[in-house]
Amino acid sequence: MDIKTEAEQARLASIKLASTSTEERNRALIAIAGALKEEAASIDAANKADLDAAESSGLATPLLKRLKFDDAKRIDCVDGIESLVSITDPLGVVHKRTELYPGLELTRVACPIGVVGIIFESRPDALVQISTLSLKSGNGCLLKGGSEARHTNRRLFEIISEAASSAGMPDGWIQLLETRDDVSAMLELDEYIDLLIPRGSNEFVRYIMDNTRISVMGHADGICHVYIDKELNIDMALNIVEDSKCQYPAVCNAVETLLVHKDIAKDFLPDMRKRLHMGRGVELRGCERTCAIIECLPAEESDWKEEYLDTILAIKIVDSIEEAITHINRYGSGHTDAIVTSNEKAAEVFLNTVDSADVFWNCSTRFADGFRFGLGAEVGISTSKLHARGPVGLDGMMSYKWQLRGSGQTVAPFADGHMKFTHVEKDL
Amino acid sequence: MDIKTEAEQARLASIKLASTSTEERNRALIAIAGALKEEAASIDAANKADLDAAESSGLATPLLKRLKFDDAKRIDCVDGIESLVSITDPLGVVHKRTELYPGLELTRVACPIGVVGIIFESRPDALVQISTLSLKSGNGCLLKGGSEARHTNRRLFEIISEAASSAGMPDGWIQLLETRDDVSAMLELDEYIDLLIPRGSNEFVRYIMDNTRISVMGHADGICHVYIDKELNIDMALNIVEDSKCQYPAVCNAVETLLVHKDIAKDFLPDMRKRLHMGRGVELRGCERTCAIIECLPAEESDWKEEYLDTILAIKIVDSIEEAITHINRYGSGHTDAIVTSNEKAAEVFLNTVDSADVFWNCSTRFADGFRFGLGAEVGISTSKLHARGPVGLDGMMSYKWQLRGSGQTVAPFADGHMKFTHVEKDL
Repeated sequence: MDIKTEAEQARLASIKLASTSTEERNRALIAIAGALKEEAASIDAANKADLDAAESSGLATPLLKRLKFDDAKRIDCVDGIESLVSITDPLGVVHKRTELYPGLELTRVACPIGVVGIIFESRPDALVQISTLSLKSGNGCLLKGGSEARHTNRRLFEIISEAASSAGMPDGWIQLLETRDDVSAMLELDEYIDLLIPRGSNEFVRYIMDNTRISVMGHADGICHVYIDKELNIDMALNIVEDSKCQYPAVCNAVETLLVHKDIAKDFLPDMRKRLHMGRGVELRGCERTCAIIECLPAEESDWKEEYLDTILAIKIVDSIEEAITHINRYGSGHTDAIVTSNEKAAEVFLNTVDSADVFWNCSTRFADGFRFGLGAEVGISTSKLHARGPVGLDGMMSYKWQLRGSGQTVAPFADGHMKFTHVEKDL
Repeated sequence: MDIKTEAEQARLASIKLASTSTEERNRALIAIAGALKEEAASIDAANKADLDAAESSGLATPLLKRLKFDDAKRIDCVDGIESLVSITDPLGVVHKRTELYPGLELTRVACPIGVVGIIFESRPDALVQISTLSLKSGNGCLLKGGSEARHTNRRLFEIISEAASSAGMPDGWIQLLETRDDVSAMLELDEYIDLLIPRGSNEFVRYIMDNTRISVMGHADGICHVYIDKELNIDMALNIVEDSKCQYPAVCNAVETLLVHKDIAKDFLPDMRKRLHMGRGVELRGCERTCAIIECLPAEESDWKEEYLDTILAIKIVDSIEEAITHINRYGSGHTDAIVTSNEKAAEVFLNTVDSADVFWNCSTRFADGFRFGLGAEVGISTSKLHARGPVGLDGMMSYKWQLRGSGQTVAPFADGHMKFTHVEKDL
């Protein structure tokens, strides 16, 4: 079957899926969880095939770890589905109810987006999380996982698809894409696909954004900042910078540039160098004024625009909080930026004026994550200011429609002034 | 000043605008309303220059009417601004407040989108409405109006810009574009502009959508349907079809295709022909089965995809409500579709399964409009399923950000299991 036919099937199924009841979708989720428990052996066999192939092709250990889908990960997935069942159904939630005129009632009702295309990395657990999140929110989905995980993904897809069908979900709501050509073909299918969520490298996400008419949710860069204000607890600042840089340097919410107020630089920078460079092996690249205080490599203009995704930190001394905010709004990627200060007023200026999805005060940038935010599973992090922003959970998978229920009303008498709208807001 | 510099100024001003208080923005709106009252003479003079030029170039009467900005329209604008002042400030509204851990509180807060580029038709009142809606919602705006209205637009822009500045708003939040080249240049400025709202012909909107990386809110086509179910009040159906087609045929929410259940076709179609064709001069284009019942032109496949924007109506007989819904989801533009039926169950199936921004039961498609919906002024109608859908008012001009206020927390102890998130939802 070609990708266009698959997308068409997903679209038709998504329309049926949108009018299934909460109970029906939850029953299907329970069936999927059950099937994942029963099919442990066949999942293991599929995963072994992927792991063997990966090992013999010399895949690096961290990637092998991500690829592994063992009992512990399977049980985590089942737990995740069970907690998804207990979450309030987002479908059909009424946001607004207005009487336009007696007998003419308008409601704004939550509905699924439709068909979502998601391209994700090599973790097979991502397939389970994303597909069940789609099902709960009533969306059809086209999934493309990492090719290293193809046997595991295929097996998981079959289990999920069959369990959902046998529980009465419309056939075709979930589709598995298996080649790169499928991804290119998907970009053309704006007639069938409403949203793309690419997860992966900057270049990949930017390629997707530049080559499709379909809306794209996600982020290309994660150039995050921590700003060290002049009034602060230095120990707290050191902990936050260390965690933001070192707890997991390869991810989008790790700090890349440190901004330091000039009045605190002499006190803070030597301790920071001790902790990050000497303690954790972080390479420091400082502006001229930084290099005058501590030993480090000189930073260039390009350093302010770079997402290292590595144990490298750019450092710049600023004259004021305003200069820090201007720097962040100019060079940042609108992802996550933090201030460390004991001055509440300064913190509020920062939180309100930095134009980023996540703005933090006195805590690590690494908290920018759907699970940590309490959103449940996360489909991605968006740096767009339209639709969902920041970590995206179930909410970001929803659209809405306007339903108007009348009793024969026409516009003409309102247009010529014989009738007047009442516009009474009603209880939900 | 070139458009890039203007956009850059708007971006810088928008960041300041985002942290102005409700009182400050309302004071500026009141100043603008006052200036519009005082400047009646200079506005009249500018409008006269446009009207004279338009008349001598032979502009059609309906367009001249739209171009005219007389005392009545000016007073309407002032009234609109005054009602905008009284609307609850959308900025800073907290949607969600979660304790992630004692001393670590997350809030999701409404904030402006940033800088919005709006291209609108020849009515000068649109400039006043859009710019004041932008100001209320804290957004910078780049405005391009119809060139026929250039003197009036320039005068209105000067009045609004000066009144806002003198009331303390940051200079540059509003910018006026005056040439077509400016529009082309604007499409490249994704670094400064967050959203484009083009209003105009299908071709124009589609051109914008296809030629920019900036998000576009709006609609290209408005192929709206009325479906006449088998159980219904025929008089009501005739009124609704007549209003949907004839009350204002040149607009996006007028009906283009009529779908009729086969069981009612023989009763309904002859009366419909009498009312619409003989009574109102509507050209009817029917499917084969329609042509067997009433005298009309034969419809072709292309008729189901056409937005006539004229007194032409395509008619198709369908075997079931399911066929009607499938036709609408296939050929429609996701704008506005209505069912006429006395069967509530059929109505609910239609309202839930038709995948359009506006789905109506027993009323005219012409109700699809921000003012009629009670949203206040409208910046446009969106057929996208992301962000705002259907008529877009103040709500659609808002984004949100996540603010996290901590007391030194780092991720490491949560990642290694020493600390556990509490995720307590708090009152707003």
